[in-house]
Amino acid sequence: MRAVFSPEQTLRHMLAFEAALALAEARTGVIPQAAAEVIARCCRVELLDSQRLTNDAVEAGNMAIPLVKQLTGNVREAATQAAGYLHWGATSQDAIDSGMALQLREALALMQRGVASLSAEVAALTEKHRSTLLAGRTLLQHAVPITFGLKAAGWLDALVRQQQRLRELKPRVLVLQFGGAAGTLASLGDRGLAVAAALAEELKLGLPAISFHTHRDRIVETAAWCGLLTGLLGKMACDLSLAMQTEVGEALEGAAEGRGGSSTMPHKRNPVAAAAVLAAAIRVPGLLSTLFAGMVQEHERGLGGWQAEWETVPEIFILTARALERMTALVAGLEVHPERMRANLDWTQGLVMAEAATMALGEKLGLGSAHRLVADASRRALAEHRSLQAVLAEDSEASKHLGPAELEALFDPLLHTGVAQQLIDRVLAEHRRVLAEHRRVLAEYRCAAAEPAQEKT
Amino acid sequence: MRAVFSPEQTLRHMLAFEAALALAEARTGVIPQAAAEVIARCCRVELLDSQRLTNDAVEAGNMAIPLVKQLTGNVREAATQAAGYLHWGATSQDAIDSGMALQLREALALMQRGVASLSAEVAALTEKHRSTLLAGRTLLQHAVPITFGLKAAGWLDALVRQQQRLRELKPRVLVLQFGGAAGTLASLGDRGLAVAAALAEELKLGLPAISFHTHRDRIVETAAWCGLLTGLLGKMACDLSLAMQTEVGEALEGAAEGRGGSSTMPHKRNPVAAAAVLAAAIRVPGLLSTLFAGMVQEHERGLGGWQAEWETVPEIFILTARALERMTALVAGLEVHPERMRANLDWTQGLVMAEAATMALGEKLGLGSAHRLVADASRRALAEHRSLQAVLAEDSEASKHLGPAELEALFDPLLHTGVAQQLIDRVLAEHRRVLAEHRRVLAEYRCAAAEPAQEKT
Amino acid sequence: MRAVFSPEQTLRHMLAFEAALALAEARTGVIPQAAAEVIARCCRVELLDSQRLTNDAVEAGNMAIPLVKQLTGNVREAATQAAGYLHWGATSQDAIDSGMALQLREALALMQRGVASLSAEVAALTEKHRSTLLAGRTLLQHAVPITFGLKAAGWLDALVRQQQRLRELKPRVLVLQFGGAAGTLASLGDRGLAVAAALAEELKLGLPAISFHTHRDRIVETAAWCGLLTGLLGKMACDLSLAMQTEVGEALEGAAEGRGGSSTMPHKRNPVAAAAVLAAAIRVPGLLSTLFAGMVQEHERGLGGWQAEWETVPEIFILTARALERMTALVAGLEVHPERMRANLDWTQGLVMAEAATMALGEKLGLGSAHRLVADASRRALAEHRSLQAVLAEDSEASKHLGPAELEALFDPLLHTGVAQQLIDRVLAEHRRVLAEHRRVLAEYRCAAAEPAQEKT
Amino acid sequence: MRAVFSPEQTLRHMLAFEAALALAEARTGVIPQAAAEVIARCCRVELLDSQRLTNDAVEAGNMAIPLVKQLTGNVREAATQAAGYLHWGATSQDAIDSGMALQLREALALMQRGVASLSAEVAALTEKHRSTLLAGRTLLQHAVPITFGLKAAGWLDALVRQQQRLRELKPRVLVLQFGGAAGTLASLGDRGLAVAAALAEELKLGLPAISFHTHRDRIVETAAWCGLLTGLLGKMACDLSLAMQTEVGEALEGAAEGRGGSSTMPHKRNPVAAAAVLAAAIRVPGLLSTLFAGMVQEHERGLGGWQAEWETVPEIFILTARALERMTALVAGLEVHPERMRANLDWTQGLVMAEAATMALGEKLGLGSAHRLVADASRRALAEHRSLQAVLAEDSEASKHLGPAELEALFDPLLHTGVAQQLIDRVLAEHRRVLAEHRRVLAEYRCAAAEPAQEKT
Repeated sequence: MRAVFSPEQTLRHMLAFEAALALAEARTGVIPQAAAEVIARCCRVELLDSQRLTNDAVEAGNMAIPLVKQLTGNVREAATQAAGYLHWGATSQDAIDSGMALQLREALALMQRGVASLSAEVAALTEKHRSTLLAGRTLLQHAVPITFGLKAAGWLDALVRQQQRLRELKPRVLVLQFGGAAGTLASLGDRGLAVAAALAEELKLGLPAISFHTHRDRIVETAAWCGLLTGLLGKMACDLSLAMQTEVGEALEGAAEGRGGSSTMPHKRNPVAAAAVLAAAIRVPGLLSTLFAGMVQEHERGLGGWQAEWETVPEIFILTARALERMTALVAGLEVHPERMRANLDWTQGLVMAEAATMALGEKLGLGSAHRLVADASRRALAEHRSLQAVLAEDSEASKHLGPAELEALFDPLLHTGVAQQLIDRVLAEHRRVLAEHRRVLAEYRCAAAEPAQEKT
Repeated sequence: MRAVFSPEQTLRHMLAFEAALALAEARTGVIPQAAAEVIARCCRVELLDSQRLTNDAVEAGNMAIPLVKQLTGNVREAATQAAGYLHWGATSQDAIDSGMALQLREALALMQRGVASLSAEVAALTEKHRSTLLAGRTLLQHAVPITFGLKAAGWLDALVRQQQRLRELKPRVLVLQFGGAAGTLASLGDRGLAVAAALAEELKLGLPAISFHTHRDRIVETAAWCGLLTGLLGKMACDLSLAMQTEVGEALEGAAEGRGGSSTMPHKRNPVAAAAVLAAAIRVPGLLSTLFAGMVQEHERGLGGWQAEWETVPEIFILTARALERMTALVAGLEVHPERMRANLDWTQGLVMAEAATMALGEKLGLGSAHRLVADASRRALAEHRSLQAVLAEDSEASKHLGPAELEALFDPLLHTGVAQQLIDRVLAEHRRVLAEHRRVLAEYRCAAAEPAQEKT
Repeated sequence: MRAVFSPEQTLRHMLAFEAALALAEARTGVIPQAAAEVIARCCRVELLDSQRLTNDAVEAGNMAIPLVKQLTGNVREAATQAAGYLHWGATSQDAIDSGMALQLREALALMQRGVASLSAEVAALTEKHRSTLLAGRTLLQHAVPITFGLKAAGWLDALVRQQQRLRELKPRVLVLQFGGAAGTLASLGDRGLAVAAALAEELKLGLPAISFHTHRDRIVETAAWCGLLTGLLGKMACDLSLAMQTEVGEALEGAAEGRGGSSTMPHKRNPVAAAAVLAAAIRVPGLLSTLFAGMVQEHERGLGGWQAEWETVPEIFILTARALERMTALVAGLEVHPERMRANLDWTQGLVMAEAATMALGEKLGLGSAHRLVADASRRALAEHRSLQAVLAEDSEASKHLGPAELEALFDPLLHTGVAQQLIDRVLAEHRRVLAEHRRVLAEYRCAAAEPAQEKT
Repeated sequence: MRAVFSPEQTLRHMLAFEAALALAEARTGVIPQAAAEVIARCCRVELLDSQRLTNDAVEAGNMAIPLVKQLTGNVREAATQAAGYLHWGATSQDAIDSGMALQLREALALMQRGVASLSAEVAALTEKHRSTLLAGRTLLQHAVPITFGLKAAGWLDALVRQQQRLRELKPRVLVLQFGGAAGTLASLGDRGLAVAAALAEELKLGLPAISFHTHRDRIVETAAWCGLLTGLLGKMACDLSLAMQTEVGEALEGAAEGRGGSSTMPHKRNPVAAAAVLAAAIRVPGLLSTLFAGMVQEHERGLGGWQAEWETVPEIFILTARALERMTALVAGLEVHPERMRANLDWTQGLVMAEAATMALGEKLGLGSAHRLVADASRRALAEHRSLQAVLAEDSEASKHLGPAELEALFDPLLHTGVAQQLIDRVLAEHRRVLAEHRRVLAEYRCAAAEPAQEKT
């Protein structure tokens, strides 16, 4: 992702815009075909002095102004008369925002593949541990038994939603920005709409009804999508790092040379990937608030809000992609310890089954009486450090209704995971449906993502 | 919107959940029909001591625990044996989150109507001022002419996108939360899925693949939608308040008794509605970052992140709705001063037409020479406080190519607004399409929004 | 704290400003003494129609405008000629901001007492558990032994810093706002400075060099102080809730009727106070970012940024105060389980002492060899589920240098808590120094905090 | 500032810590003097493979682990036996956080100089324009006359406060972090405190009562200081960019080659420096909320919160410093147009003096009658596009009390700027006092800031 948002790649996308603009204007008869071809040939990042661009951008106020200036120089050297046709009818923000749309197309394609990879890993984990018993925990306290697969299915279900959202926002977000100085395309006379349509076609971007220089909702909703994803990744990292605590020991990050170790403390395997993901989940919300706040932009071109996006959007994408990669590797290499999950479940000596016992006795005694009986027995079990099963077996009232075999079954947590298996099946089915969809999209991407400026030159 | 999120209405929605749960469980044979009917009858907010609920919720940790406790007391009084069937198989968060889904359904219906109203006002403004000339401004400087209708069309286009997003997220967001203590529905044995389906049907909520107690993306994306909307409203308020500056004077908030006045300064009409909208646009981003940050929740029930939502979500909705109302009233009552728009456009004595002059001379002289000629003329005009048209009329080179009539036409800004009219038409067409859609949805809402618990009792 | 920021109290503070202004202007000969006395007598919240104020404030744009209007009516009824002298030379924001300063004085006094109370509880905990062994944990993994008192001393040290910061910011923040329409006090002629000085004296507020209507740093730094405090409270809640996990069991929130319980799960004592504190720690950062963002205010009176403060500042104070109270109660009632702390420390069978063993052997073997020896032994201990002490006792090389008694001492964690006791002493000494200071301040507060307007009437 | 936070400089500060630690331990007899000298000699950034460090840090979880590893290799080559004494008794975070303290010392020294430079420019502007008339504007509407110097004095006053805050926080923030694995300094036996004291002395950092690995308030308050500063800079940029609007024209950014221009629109001078400052003011609040949120850190070493600081703190400092530089240059090169300020003040034809007229007539007619008279006259003036002065001159009642000369004086705004001159004097006096203080600090800095590790080697 860092490559997608590198300064060089940013320039390359702006050059793609300038090249496509020239070609579109030639096609629509606005500028000579020969000029367009010269311009397109000059739109190569290798021909620019990028250090000078960066310096000049400070005083110019944005990157497009010095880019067009340098490019004009280069085109003039190639063919004097062509130079006048460069950037014809466009404004700086047209180049920068359309470049950003191309960049987002690449970024979202990477994200989509990344989410698909993580989904595949999580789906495998779900399948593998669909019956691995685990204490369900609410407010960090044991509640009732679940399976590790059910927890993973919850993660997977959220990943499915992320993919659905991505499908929805892509056509809205990956669109051309083209309005000229203040959105009217005035310097193209009556050919403005034709050029816009041809340009969108060149760049394989959507064509919006109107330019949107100071309406940033498309950018912000895309970043918010990243925010939803880092939130999910943070939740997964939170669950896993809690499971990796010394006292809990239900999972470990896969061992690797130089990872999370300590020379003096050989028992230590630090959850460093989880820490990195959690750091991203702490950072992205603040960055997002910047983008939402920056939406309040002045008239036809913003004074501060637009500029605030330039480093913030890449930062959000890079943090999210990095967290996604770390989490995918973490899940792929995760050491799961089912025996510790089981031992922890048994840690409270059956209290985690109190709800089940209440329901079973309730059918015989009525719920109210069953309740009081089990609550008393639980308190006794806690006080005497004995199992709830043992206490109930000795209880004269309880043992009247529940024989040893029934009690034994009652305290088998595997029999008390409700509809966990069916829920897992539903989520896996959803996942497979989305996966099939993703394969189609991936195929499309292979066709579409090739960099237009490069194709032409 | 304040009513939708009032403490009373919050309780009402939780009661609707409890009533519907009992009825769904009766339908699926889990509890006796008679018990369900008693429960449903008791699920009335008037029967609760809401002050005690609020107090007890502090120690209990959430509102559902004391609610179920009070409700149990009430049901027991009505029919002792029914009390044991209340809240059967559900967890606190099931009631709270499903209540929230019902609340969001109301809130989003209000939002949808609010956005439709604002869109109608903005569309009318767009139509009315489609040819009203205005200086396009970039970085707060005059750039080239636009029309006020084009600016309004930009706002309208963004409102159209908001409506599209709302359509997408509603089916994903308005869903049942029902998982029991840790998501397995264990205490319902093998009837968990049947109850869930019946319950979703009762509440007319969607049925998700799996419960999502610690996956908050649905809530957060809905709040982010509000954030996109306040961002847009803030942008509109920004544009309008800049237009209302004493020196600019292109618009005023409609006069009203007691609004924005000052007893000693009769010339003052403060943009108080704009200020209120801008305040909302400043506040919502920070509140949103809270929700994104709160997504990192522990295991099967969150410790802090979930609780952080309870006041933040209503606050976001209330702020957004209030801003939406203020902006709708502002636009509806807006005093527009086309003559000041025109006067401001002429303020720089034709410099705003420099681009047009360059293009016209470029066809005769070549672009490079035209450029230099106009730039020189512009500098002279600025220095001598004369109009660019006058300077060009006297310029020997320019006057060779442009006669007085041509010059006159060249400096008519109305002839240089490019494709503004077509762009406006495209946006209005979009708007009409969405409006038709909205009417359908509104009709649906009239059927669906009636409060389910009330229907039954 | 909710009372300090109640609508009624907010009005009371604004009335205190208006009363003090009249009296100060009488003292400096600007208005007649008799008029001032009438005005001061009318400045009572009971005489206002607060519902109408709230309604009128919407259109007026702030609360001071309708307040002055109602008040003028009331004064006119009391003495016609006095009405003209009300609010003389002041602007709305003078009343609102000076009222806020009075409010902050009350709020900070409460905060100071609250922090002092929590400090006292934490100091007691530090003393009591200064030698209670506990596993030091880094990245949620056991590291080396500490004492619970040392952890508490870390909290206490941070509380000391908070008190130091509060001392620094109070004189800067608790100052008069008084500048008239645009900061010049023009309508007071040459008596502006004299009135300002007398007014500051009346209100016992500091007198700033110049009014600061659109410079909000004082407000924001005060809110940031709250943010630092909730951050600390959140850190404490985080530590404690991790200690309260079922598997860790080192602490519990004190039991209370209706607190954090569950009817079906008697073993469950939910950390509900910790959850509430964590929720506050998640919410305050976003609210703070609103205030920082709102600092960008226009010219002599802000358009949005100022208005964004009105609900955000109270919200931050109320959340912080609520979290402070919950944490104070939590610490005061905390159940600590030293035996579980010790058992958890022993959980890894001596691996937590690996560092100590390495240092001891290092003196005999050289560090490098000692390192390798202990690392090998640790791996063996882990693999064979034996204690590191036992493995080293059998190791031919280790046992050459360390006899059984030496080994026994080496594996006594109490002997390996370094300078924990001295560090605790240093922090307690700091605390006592600040406590003495606080007592002085408390005495001052008793004199100063009485509400000025009330005093006069 | 970018240099202060460069990866290389970050390493240099960590090396300074390691060198000083060795020397301090030699002085206190913990390690051999010879070993310390070898270590100190090896602590040079040039001897490290920084690319490998960056790569290894990903898996290790922080930068200190691979740094110590490489450094150990280098020391071993220089003198085998010295290698075992490196990083003796310290933990990774000790090196990273103490390095950060050294970095903050450099950063704050730069900030202090930057704020002093800006203050000097603003003070000069204040002096120069102390009597330059300007419309005071509230909610973007003309209110009453002020002077441009008074506005600048408001900025200066806030800069004075920033310097005061900096003085307060420096001793609290620029302190040593040194606690070993979990804060006890256990591996230094009873010499922990002596080493800590010697180390603080070596690094010329303060010595805190206790280590504070998971208490981040020092870092966060420093960043919040930056936030207050960017808020102020944003406010200045806001004021100036509003003044630079085409219709207002009261100021322009100084012209420079390639700055803010447009080839086709010669009248355009974009406020690009203001835009850059505003972008920073939009970005810093979100980044700050990250740091406040990150304060909730686990036990003795954080999992996510600490890591979230590493890029966020530098980003805040770099953004703030960049904004400070841009604003300083902007103010230094500012083109002020007093004639436009005056023309704008006269724009409403004397309405801006309505308050003054009311006061003058009030002395004769009583305030109530004066009020009504002036309000009527103002409405007439507005309706008839005439000056308020002319309308009052013709008014039979008004002209009875105010002769032509009196009226003339009344409508001279310069006579109605209240105590602006005295307020300016007060602020300038404050500024001079702080400036003198700053010169002392600067002198100190010249002594202290030299990089310790470099000194020794």
